[in-house]
Amino acid sequence: MLNKNKEMKRTAKAHWTGDLKTGQGELTTQSNVLNKTRYSFNTRFADGQGTNPEELIAAAHAGCFTMALAYALSQKGFPANELETTATVNVDMALSAITGIQLSLKASQISGLTEESFLEYANEAKKNCLVSKVLTGAEITLNVNYSSLQPEL
Amino acid sequence: MLNKNKEMKRTAKAHWTGDLKTGQGELTTQSNVLNKTRYSFNTRFADGQGTNPEELIAAAHAGCFTMALAYALSQKGFPANELETTATVNVDMALSAITGIQLSLKASQISGLTEESFLEYANEAKKNCLVSKVLTGAEITLNVNYSSLQPEL
Repeated sequence: MLNKNKEMKRTAKAHWTGDLKTGQGELTTQSNVLNKTRYSFNTRFADGQGTNPEELIAAAHAGCFTMALAYALSQKGFPANELETTATVNVDMALSAITGIQLSLKASQISGLTEESFLEYANEAKKNCLVSKVLTGAEITLNVNYSSLQPEL
Repeated sequence: MLNKNKEMKRTAKAHWTGDLKTGQGELTTQSNVLNKTRYSFNTRFADGQGTNPEELIAAAHAGCFTMALAYALSQKGFPANELETTATVNVDMALSAITGIQLSLKASQISGLTEESFLEYANEAKKNCLVSKVLTGAEITLNVNYSSLQPEL
């Protein structure tokens, strides 16, 4: 399904002007989904309006894991109906480090698929998704609530 | 400057409906900078409109590194004028893995700061920024072009 010979490059740009506290940053991704999107000391460590690197890591991880699970379920003949994953990135300010990432998955029931099999596929997706494999500096945990979402009509 | 006793949590949510190829995903971050932003198989591995986890990793890394350098420069008494970092995430599709991340930094000259010192601070920021410390599954490289940007007036 995927072109296995391909090397893929994905890029983003950060621009910063000024010192730490009064300076301003902007983030732009290749797709322009982020387009000179503001980030700053205050959006990162306080309550300023804008994004921050940690929530982008959370989005990348939630997105990668959820797609990996959708892929696995398709491969096994049990395509997903609804999957929803919240990723929480924990930062320990004393250590100045991301110490853990929690993935919390809810799913609607899939006809013919047991909870045991669903858990197995979810744990494989957690282990094998590209973003999990690069985020090796933090402990990644997963909890799963199968059949907790209503399928969309 | 930072509250060292604080544990910080940053979150994002992924929602997926359907199988891999025809299914659709949405990403939403805590700040709502991403707000039901579309991602899919095609936005990730082909040329569909939308974002993908790899460019979000690139944005997180470029943003974190650039802010860490702005912080270091402020601390040393040489606040940055203009910093611009492009992060490129390389995906090896055969290995199904992110194999490397390149940080490419341009900066305007800072009065009184030698290129040697600037390089030293940039390499420290690469080593110490929170996102570098969690992305330990890939090799991170840095190249620096000091004095290559014009300061803003």
